[in-house]
Order: sequence, then structure tokens, then C-alpha cells
Amino acid sequence: MRLLTQTASEKMLLLDSRRAVRRVAIVGGTHGNEATGVAVARYLARHPTAARRPSFETMTILANTAAIAANTRYVDEDLNRCFLSELLGDASRASGEAARARELDLLIGPKGSEQAHDLVIDLHNTTSNSGIALMMAPDDALSHAVAAKLVSLDSRVRVCEWAEASDHAMLPSVGASGFTLEVGPVAWGVVDGELYATTLRLVLAALDAVHERNAALAAASPRFDRTELPVFRTLRRVDYPRDECGELQALVHPKLQSRDFEPLVAGTPIFLDVDGTSVAARYEPEPDDGEVVPFFINEAAYYEKGIAFALAKRATRTCDVW
Amino acid sequence: MRLLTQTASEKMLLLDSRRAVRRVAIVGGTHGNEATGVAVARYLARHPTAARRPSFETMTILANTAAIAANTRYVDEDLNRCFLSELLGDASRASGEAARARELDLLIGPKGSEQAHDLVIDLHNTTSNSGIALMMAPDDALSHAVAAKLVSLDSRVRVCEWAEASDHAMLPSVGASGFTLEVGPVAWGVVDGELYATTLRLVLAALDAVHERNAALAAASPRFDRTELPVFRTLRRVDYPRDECGELQALVHPKLQSRDFEPLVAGTPIFLDVDGTSVAARYEPEPDDGEVVPFFINEAAYYEKGIAFALAKRATRTCDVW
Repeated sequence: MRLLTQTASEKMLLLDSRRAVRRVAIVGGTHGNEATGVAVARYLARHPTAARRPSFETMTILANTAAIAANTRYVDEDLNRCFLSELLGDASRASGEAARARELDLLIGPKGSEQAHDLVIDLHNTTSNSGIALMMAPDDALSHAVAAKLVSLDSRVRVCEWAEASDHAMLPSVGASGFTLEVGPVAWGVVDGELYATTLRLVLAALDAVHERNAALAAASPRFDRTELPVFRTLRRVDYPRDECGELQALVHPKLQSRDFEPLVAGTPIFLDVDGTSVAARYEPEPDDGEVVPFFINEAAYYEKGIAFALAKRATRTCDVW
Repeated sequence: MRLLTQTASEKMLLLDSRRAVRRVAIVGGTHGNEATGVAVARYLARHPTAARRPSFETMTILANTAAIAANTRYVDEDLNRCFLSELLGDASRASGEAARARELDLLIGPKGSEQAHDLVIDLHNTTSNSGIALMMAPDDALSHAVAAKLVSLDSRVRVCEWAEASDHAMLPSVGASGFTLEVGPVAWGVVDGELYATTLRLVLAALDAVHERNAALAAASPRFDRTELPVFRTLRRVDYPRDECGELQALVHPKLQSRDFEPLVAGTPIFLDVDGTSVAARYEPEPDDGEVVPFFINEAAYYEKGIAFALAKRATRTCDVW
């Protein structure tokens, strides 16, 4: 199982990637108010046999327990931005989330070590209409291969790659491999039955896929097939028009709302003036845009991050699957 | 303008109801994370000419400013349950919301006094698919009449009556008349452009309606027409199945989700087991149910209140309109 790209990190993954998976962590509540993911993790924690597979150990964890109790995204700071190695190594960081990140690093890491879990699946929800999106590092071969299996089972599944970086701040980066399972649209604090059932089904299918891979690797002559996996690569992020105090001067336009992953056409209204009727801005392509798609449109948690929506481009990765 | 029912309170309203409206309060952010309503109130506060009408004064208020800043429903307790006269009169109540309720009572009340604002319009949002619902006391003649005007302008508008009570805890009850404008579905913290524009349009239409009523009353021989207004009357509330610790044992079933205000048929699955596949409960009518409709299905804020959905029955009220 490998990706046919040529960066140094991917060559290392290629050398290492035929190692069997021994430990998987399923995480919910990294954001405490993403209640559908929390409910799935809680179910698996209480029904461990459902997550048990013969060839590896599975652990289910609720990450930001204080935020879950408060039904908020976080208490002091966003836990899912606390996992850069530099931050984990800074013992002076005093927030509740910094402390919890260090605990989680001990539990499923330590990040970058031989002891780290082989695969981390982090369950999230979005208020945007982004559907089912698996978010992962561009050089994470195992996560791409598991994603390819899930896409083959459910054609609604999309794969998105984080921007290239030498380190990532998100929780799944603590594992040797790991991805975010981002499911929406669903409001903060709401358990949506349909999305709950879909999330649970996909998590169990991912565990099945890992077990099948272990079985394939244990065969006398392991057989892997090659597949082309469509992915979305983050291009840039677009903020709301704001005044000098940071207050919104415009809203996501109804013609953009809920159109996640639909190609964006030049001239499409993207922002509605606060007068409720005027177009405040239209999409004007930048020189290298080509076909771009918006996603995470009007995500509640991204107002404070300065993101009205993200833009991505389509690409293809070649994966070996079993 | 009057309601043709026969309770003592409604007879009093009838005697009093041909009084011109002198002061209207528009309120947003009674729940701090209902961001679409907050954004509309903020717009009107900054553009007071939009809310100005020649025959009365309009004041726009952000109610729970601490909760708006924190992007939470409330800080210590639900502000929209703090307006019972008994609670307002209890100076020992020490929560931030209790203090803010007393301030608001001075600003738009005092409740029950001659100085109280004539009409209070409180802007809310729901995560449920309840559409546009005006919620009001059953004996509030002016609110019913304004609602009838809004229904005539936008057939999506529904009118819901709070349960009969000698006093109401909600903010609009501080005015001589008042209603909640409840708009959804929209997630906590999200400003939805379409719902924002709809809310703003309806608030301005309500102000127009009040001005037209004042003009009609000022005529030498005021002319009022009679109209039949369909309303929904709350019947009872249904909680999630829970274990002995209060944890959810089931979720709103996908076959019920988003079916707000559709007649509920006996045998319809209403709860999904946490296994993600089994039906945990079906709707079984109670003897007097007749045709009932669910609403506020899977509202995020009602998990803690023990409400998975409410049930209502259709009724009709007769209003005089101008």
C-alpha cells in the first residue's frame, strides 16, 4: 500500500507502509459540541465488542471531556490546534486543552514515536453542508488507502487533504496515521440520527478495512491492487467582509449556502449585504484558480477563525488497496 | 381588533385593544448563540431609520450581551425563563441572567404596568425544521392580529400558542403584547443569509402592520375586518428515552427528523436505538390526540430541558384586522 508521489516523507511511508496495524484509536469530542460524533464514540466506548477486530486493539476515547460537559467547542482554546510537536513539548502551556493534549499524546502517542497508535480516527461534525469528508495529511498513505476502501463502499465519501506542512496541529497527527471523519450538516449540540448511523457504519467499515489489510499482509504472498483516489486539495480560505472592529459586514449569500463541493462559477454571488437584499461580493477567480470548489461554507466554528469558506481543487492520488 | 373567545383576560383585552401602539421593542440575543436573530437586531440597532415608523417609537435591544459575547445560549441560566413576575420581583436572585432580566424589565416594562412597551418582538432561532413560527400567549390579541397580517404576506408563517398560564416566563411577556419570532433550521452560531433576509423582512412588515393599525385607529370611523387565523396549540412534550443517569438511549429517528408540523401517523418510528439501526419507539396516539403535529423536533437547546419534540393540535382563532 503506497502513494506514487516522490517526496521524502512519502518515500519513508512507502518503506514503512507494509507494517501490520496493531493499535487503532477512535476519538470523539475533540470538539465538545459536535454531538453526533460524541454520541458515536460514547456508543463504541460502551459497546467495545462492536469495535473489536481479531488482528488489532481498538481504544475509544472522549477527548475534550470538559467541553463535552459544557456542550461547547472548547473551554480555553481549540484542542484540535494543540498537537504541533512544539506545542506538546511546551510544558509551560497552561490551558485546560494544552494539559489534555499532553494526556492524549501519552495515551495515543507519543507523537512521532514508535509507540504511537498506528491509526487515529477522529470524529467531527460541521454545520456546513460538506457531507462526509475524510481530512488527512497529504503524505499519510494508510489513511488514503482506508479512505479509498470507504469511498468504494459509499460514493458520498470525499477525501480532503490538509495543506502540506512539516507538522500538523490536529489530533489525528498524533498517530502514525490518522484522519478526521467530518460529517454534516448538523448543528452544535444535535445528534442527527441519519448522520449518526452513517458515522457508525463508516467507523466499523474502516475497522473492517484495517483488519482485511492485516490479513492480506499476513498472507504468504500479499496481494495489493492499485486504485485512483479522487481528492480535494485546499487552495485558500476566504473570510467574511468585516468592518474595522471585525464585525461582519455581509453574510454567506443564499446562492452559495449549502453548495459545498459544487464548482464555483465566476460571478456567483458569495456574500449578501446585511441589508438583506444586495449582493456584497461575487466570486472573481484568481489567475491560477481553474476549477475550484468551496467547502466548509458558513461553518459556525470558523467565524472566529476568519473563514467564511475554503476553496479546494480536485486531484487524484494513486493508492494500493487490498 | 379582538379575539372572539370568552375568557376574562380576553374580554379585558377586547376592551383595551383599540388603543394605539406607542412603543415597540425589537429584541435579539435573548439566547446568545441564536446568531441569525442577533445579526438582524444588530442591523436594526445600527440602522434605526429602517425600524422607524411615524406613529410610534421603536427601540432595538441586544438582550443577553454576555451570552452573545460567549456565543452560548446563556451564561448562568436561560434568560428566556426569567420573566415570571415572581422571579422579577425576587431581588435575591443572583445570576447574571436574573440581573439582566431586571434591567430589561425596567427598559421595556415594568411587566404588567402602564409603562410597559405595547409590543415586544423577540428574535429567536431553532435548530429544528420548524420554519417560521410566531409564538405567543393565547390571550394576546394584538400579537395574534399582527401575526394574521404576517401570515397574509407570507404563507409559510405559522402561529403557535404557548400553553395557557396566568403568567409566562418568556421575555415578550414583559410587554403589554409580545411574541417570539422563531426561525429555523439554523445551527447555533450561524447567520443563515436566507433566514436573515426573511427575518428582517418580517420584522419590518410587522412594524408596517402596527403603523397601519395606528392609522386605522386614528380614522374618524375605524374599520376593522374579521379573519380566521389558523394556530397550533401545544399539547404535550416528549422526552428522549434515557437511562438511569439521564444519558440518551435513543435518538430522533430519521423518519421523524425535519418533519415538523407534518401530521404524525400512528406507528411512525420516532426514536432510533443507539445501535444505529433498530427502531426504539414508534408513535402511539393517546386517547384524545386526534390529529397532532410534532414541532421543535431535535432542537439542540431542549436536550437539557427533556424535550425531544413537542406535539400540537390545530385550532382557529378569529381576529379583527385592519
